Amino acid sequence: MTRVTPLLDTIALPDDLRGLGEEQLLQLADELRAETISAVSETGGHLGAGLGVIELTIALHYVFDTPRDLLIWDVGHQSYPHKILTGRRDKIRTLRQKDGLSGFTRRVESEYDPFGTAHSSTSLSAGLGFAAARNLKGGDERVVCVIGDGAMSAGMAYEAMNNVAIGDSRFIAILNDNDMSIARPVGAMSGYLSRLLSSRSYQAAHNVSHRIARKIPRPLARAAVRAEEYARGMLTGGTLFEELGFFYIGPVDGHSLPQLLPVLRNVRAAGDKPGGRPILLHVVTKKGKGYPPAEAAEDKFHGVSAGFDTPATKADEKTSEKTSKTASESKTQTQDSPQDKTQAAKPIAWTRAFSDALINAANSDDTIVAVTAAMPSGTGLDKFAQAHPRRCFDVGIAEQHAVTFCAGMAAAGLRPFAAIYSTFLQRAYDQVVHDVALQSLPVRFVLDRAGLVGADGPTHHGAFDIAYLCCLPNFVVMAPSDGDELVHMLETQILLDACPSAMRFPRGALPHPARATTPTPLPPLPLGKGRILQEGTDLAILSFGALLGEAQEATQQLAAQGLSTTLADARFAKPLDTDLVRQLARHHKRLAVLEEGASGGFATQVFSCLAGEGDGLAGRIIPLTLPDVFLDHAERKEQLSEAQLTATQISTRLATALTNT
Amino acid sequence: MTRVTPLLDTIALPDDLRGLGEEQLLQLADELRAETISAVSETGGHLGAGLGVIELTIALHYVFDTPRDLLIWDVGHQSYPHKILTGRRDKIRTLRQKDGLSGFTRRVESEYDPFGTAHSSTSLSAGLGFAAARNLKGGDERVVCVIGDGAMSAGMAYEAMNNVAIGDSRFIAILNDNDMSIARPVGAMSGYLSRLLSSRSYQAAHNVSHRIARKIPRPLARAAVRAEEYARGMLTGGTLFEELGFFYIGPVDGHSLPQLLPVLRNVRAAGDKPGGRPILLHVVTKKGKGYPPAEAAEDKFHGVSAGFDTPATKADEKTSEKTSKTASESKTQTQDSPQDKTQAAKPIAWTRAFSDALINAANSDDTIVAVTAAMPSGTGLDKFAQAHPRRCFDVGIAEQHAVTFCAGMAAAGLRPFAAIYSTFLQRAYDQVVHDVALQSLPVRFVLDRAGLVGADGPTHHGAFDIAYLCCLPNFVVMAPSDGDELVHMLETQILLDACPSAMRFPRGALPHPARATTPTPLPPLPLGKGRILQEGTDLAILSFGALLGEAQEATQQLAAQGLSTTLADARFAKPLDTDLVRQLARHHKRLAVLEEGASGGFATQVFSCLAGEGDGLAGRIIPLTLPDVFLDHAERKEQLSEAQLTATQISTRLATALTNT
Repeated sequence: MTRVTPLLDTIALPDDLRGLGEEQLLQLADELRAETISAVSETGGHLGAGLGVIELTIALHYVFDTPRDLLIWDVGHQSYPHKILTGRRDKIRTLRQKDGLSGFTRRVESEYDPFGTAHSSTSLSAGLGFAAARNLKGGDERVVCVIGDGAMSAGMAYEAMNNVAIGDSRFIAILNDNDMSIARPVGAMSGYLSRLLSSRSYQAAHNVSHRIARKIPRPLARAAVRAEEYARGMLTGGTLFEELGFFYIGPVDGHSLPQLLPVLRNVRAAGDKPGGRPILLHVVTKKGKGYPPAEAAEDKFHGVSAGFDTPATKADEKTSEKTSKTASESKTQTQDSPQDKTQAAKPIAWTRAFSDALINAANSDDTIVAVTAAMPSGTGLDKFAQAHPRRCFDVGIAEQHAVTFCAGMAAAGLRPFAAIYSTFLQRAYDQVVHDVALQSLPVRFVLDRAGLVGADGPTHHGAFDIAYLCCLPNFVVMAPSDGDELVHMLETQILLDACPSAMRFPRGALPHPARATTPTPLPPLPLGKGRILQEGTDLAILSFGALLGEAQEATQQLAAQGLSTTLADARFAKPLDTDLVRQLARHHKRLAVLEEGASGGFATQVFSCLAGEGDGLAGRIIPLTLPDVFLDHAERKEQLSEAQLTATQISTRLATALTNT
Repeated sequence: MTRVTPLLDTIALPDDLRGLGEEQLLQLADELRAETISAVSETGGHLGAGLGVIELTIALHYVFDTPRDLLIWDVGHQSYPHKILTGRRDKIRTLRQKDGLSGFTRRVESEYDPFGTAHSSTSLSAGLGFAAARNLKGGDERVVCVIGDGAMSAGMAYEAMNNVAIGDSRFIAILNDNDMSIARPVGAMSGYLSRLLSSRSYQAAHNVSHRIARKIPRPLARAAVRAEEYARGMLTGGTLFEELGFFYIGPVDGHSLPQLLPVLRNVRAAGDKPGGRPILLHVVTKKGKGYPPAEAAEDKFHGVSAGFDTPATKADEKTSEKTSKTASESKTQTQDSPQDKTQAAKPIAWTRAFSDALINAANSDDTIVAVTAAMPSGTGLDKFAQAHPRRCFDVGIAEQHAVTFCAGMAAAGLRPFAAIYSTFLQRAYDQVVHDVALQSLPVRFVLDRAGLVGADGPTHHGAFDIAYLCCLPNFVVMAPSDGDELVHMLETQILLDACPSAMRFPRGALPHPARATTPTPLPPLPLGKGRILQEGTDLAILSFGALLGEAQEATQQLAAQGLSTTLADARFAKPLDTDLVRQLARHHKRLAVLEEGASGGFATQVFSCLAGEGDGLAGRIIPLTLPDVFLDHAERKEQLSEAQLTATQISTRLATALTNT
């Protein structure tokens, strides 16, 4: 659709924006909103988040002196309008495409992105780092962090708030509180914000000005300060933030430029006198604001579904794909995002297969419980929660708590499943080591999005889990190669009551489109045993996980070249099928080990097994792992190819290796 | 010293305790205190923490029905009195010794330890897990978590508080607030607690009873509830905790049994009617309470040093070793603990060498800043802070924030050093991956206590860092083999402005006692280059880090057996000196690679290098890593032996391998 954007066309950089009159900004907001919708309708991506901050984005760049003043968007999925205003409009239709703009902020993209983001709740810590550096250098720039209410449930945000005093009044946190009316509150913070909103009408700009004027420290007795603080709490809310050291202002309507601009000017002016408390400005916005299908969707899914935060997935602007994401989930966004375009045919997803199997198992085993960290639909636990509402826990964005909470339940005799994306389990690594593995507590980890994730890019690849789990004693680490294997492995996990276990699978659809998940449970697997799919004589491929299909195709290509290949599915990276490994190494010239993970994982297990033998067989191993780089966003297929792990690349690499032997 | 403990002698288990009259408990407290001091004077360990909770321990077991009611001590270093009362008195003089009691709580030790701890801030999450399991099973046991004020600065504790609603009134958090008067406050939470205390006198038991009676939910309009809450906040403080969903009670004098017992009874009774809010009881205690040398020490170190939380290190009871630990640090305790007895001679510690070198470097480079997460003395940053107060940041127990805070400072052009123990960096793994490595920001990690740590045991070993860092693109990973190497490497880190780097070294003293750290800076090392110390012909040892001394000794033993060994120091695990590796593999029958870390680390790097060659040389590798088990507490030397990594074990293993070749 062609858009007429006369005003936006004049804005190359925020400096141009600052040349406009205030009365023009309303029109600019309309044009920016239209441009954002238009771009996302082409590229797919997170639409709702960006639409929710159109006015805020304009107001921030208008009032603050970016890039001198630092603007850090938490998560960064809401930064598309920001990108349009900061010199990247010409590339906005390459969002999330190979070689195009990232779906998040990124230092290499622009000086207007001072810090890269994507996982939630990092902005305050990073911003305080910039503030500390400024203080040391004697600069006077402002640091502005925009953080969502969902991101506030993560411990990391609290750790930063606990250290916020370093920031002084030139450190400004903007709490972007959206979808309050339809959010399913997760956690006390969410409830607290709801109470703040319900008890207050929006704060007028002159009040803010007055309050800021009053905040200059006066020599008051401590008791008096305290009384004043409580009185202020009664009046304006925000006591919790005030207790943590912030000067709280709000709530303010985030879609009203006439409200936002004077408040932001006051906030900025407060920093002219260094010292004083850092400022938390509570802004209320609405996701998808100004896009009728999104607002309609919200009505339809009120309370349970945010409706339209999602991803128009290259849909026509007139239609919007409604998903069943809950409000808390859509707040975290990065934690889930549109499927690759290639998956438009909607075959059964790995996630779905897991979800169905877990529901099935829980029907006959009431010790099964499941925990998600703000990702109910991304992990498939939304369906589990419908089937077993008392046994499903959404703890909010709080992976550390999620894992140790599971450890507690396991110690109490339940069978907890922690369903967490591979990349997000990094947030809870110490809890996995210290609370789970060390005590050998039977927490069952289900790591979705393990491997390459496509358009979400390097922040979201599940590249390291095999390495960071296999080095831990007591852990069972599995990866299914198809839907049936997943069901076998889930049953295996259920019965593993003496140690922790993990099952990892990639984003996307199951292989074997014709073969759906078995509706009935399949038996557990013998622990640490792989399986041979095909016998050959020249070389062997031992595959771990979902790349088995590529391996299979590679063996056919090798056969066409006259090379006979044994193909095996390891099933377990740990405990490893050492008999199988030795046998494969002994009877073939080379043993290729294949995994969709960084080095240090499965290949290391195979190497450790063979190196212990002392017969030189470890020299036959060809490790096929992810390369030692962070692969950029692109389609998953493109990424696999960059990783040299497509069937053709595998067969070529192996044929070459065999020639060189 | 022989102690007369007639009452304590009658207590085998808490059931016996509950048979005593209330008037006898005061005497019991005296005896328990004496027994604790006596035991720790023999074994070393954390004395102050236990002495601070003598009365609380007695009161909890007296009022609650342990082990049916679950008592979870956060960190667990304060659990010695608890161990004495729960059937482990006969082993209390084996604390922290090989095959003896652990210095923390541990599930395998006793049914009175429902959850193992050691890293801080896990108790609330674990306790909520138990509470959730109870709710599902329809039980009525109480869950009581005792958490220190220092532990409250960790995001994990906040994540749990944010989810505390699951607990209901049978979930009781006891905030053990100690050393308030002398604590150097770190963070907003600490300041908040100080304000609570300063504004309130201790709460009388009848008040508590009255408040609890009032708390049964009534049908009040939301606004009314809110007003009541604020009024209550004015009266009693605790609004922050109330906002998070707790029913706050306190503060209560934790050393007064007449105060504690009725309050705890009320708290317990509140759980008779399930539902209602979980309870937070704020208890004030004094570390080292009742031990004159400790209290004297506190006076002496007021404000800066907690003085005596430490570790009598087998000292006579009459003397106490004063350390320079700060109050915030001693709160975390587990994060630091007594040196092995073998280090009584006090040679220069790795920590000290690092600290001196960093101070030295910072004298001439004002972009150097340093960050610790509540471990100023454990990491040596206390001295750095004295030399460069504006450039040292203690963020409290908040590793996640610490790392991303450093990332922010790095992005702003500073040269930040994050000094964090290997085991605690696990808490910030996602931040290392997502905020540092992915953006290739030059944060300099200094990982103290990397490798085996002795008496602190498996919770504190730094076993996984080589594996979890080497799998990350862009990372430089180094390990010095002695003090001079440390200075070289520090200089290398300083100049690495384009990527993150880590230097790891073990606990304890530098090798080469005669060779002190060079007072002047040493030049940086060529990146990714190792060094050969000794040329041989039969086999090669490539050592990474501080085990070089053992390797050196092993080569002498091998020489005595007629085996000629090349010895090399890798210096870098990443980037690896691939030329050196190839050369060593090519010219020797076997290449032993040595590291004090779990598999997946240095050996994997060497393997990946040689496997890429395709000439079978990877088959010559003998990986000498930590074994795939969690090694129990013991002296470091004993642990090295269990790990099969002493010089003699190395030489034996290699001689055998060579024979088998």
